[in-house]
Amino acid sequence: MNTGILVLGHGSTLPYNKELVEQVAETIAGYGNAVVRTAFLNINQPTLKQGLESFKGTGVDKIVALPIFLAHGVHTLEDIPRELNLNEDKKATIEIDGGMVELVYAEPFGADASIAELAYRRANEALSR
Amino acid sequence: MNTGILVLGHGSTLPYNKELVEQVAETIAGYGNAVVRTAFLNINQPTLKQGLESFKGTGVDKIVALPIFLAHGVHTLEDIPRELNLNEDKKATIEIDGGMVELVYAEPFGADASIAELAYRRANEALSR
Repeated sequence: MNTGILVLGHGSTLPYNKELVEQVAETIAGYGNAVVRTAFLNINQPTLKQGLESFKGTGVDKIVALPIFLAHGVHTLEDIPRELNLNEDKKATIEIDGGMVELVYAEPFGADASIAELAYRRANEALSR
Repeated sequence: MNTGILVLGHGSTLPYNKELVEQVAETIAGYGNAVVRTAFLNINQPTLKQGLESFKGTGVDKIVALPIFLAHGVHTLEDIPRELNLNEDKKATIEIDGGMVELVYAEPFGADASIAELAYRRANEALSR
């Protein structure tokens, strides 16, 4: 597996954001196609820098930074690109284990149909409680 | 249709959170089973109070407050319940058009399989760009 996925969360003083990010990472790791690590913008660890460093020794030659955010905002458009030193094309090249690794940046979820379906499911669960 | 769904967003200085919440609301309204309105915790309008008031004249007898949030945090556990005057059972009774309407509160998305699937799709889209 040469592809790394850095699953990026917002971070929270409460444990739930971190738990969600870790569970998403675990599920994606279970798909078996990538080396998966987590990182957090605020409060929780690993930080983004630590998250990138955690690919040392894994042999990845490309990493996707995958923001677990619903929509673009200041965090996804300014904070994360700044922390990852992304260029205007939302990419960067970083050095890991002495080799150059391409870093690309995924989009947030957006208004995908699956988001509306899940929201509607949550609404119906609340109605049946 | 006697059920109302108040689709609740975080709000943002950028337009994307509001757009996502409005698109989710539009999709859910398209299912045809509820009167759907939107509201925002911060920055954007309608506010939560305005959102509840927007069910006037619709004839709903039950409203679900549906947070468009990935995970529980201070916003979903403290801010929204306080703004909606929810009791310990995460419910409230409000008056609309002179009648009493039950308000219930849905859970955020959580680590549903569909969230991990969508995240993985976003990662692969970034890899193929």
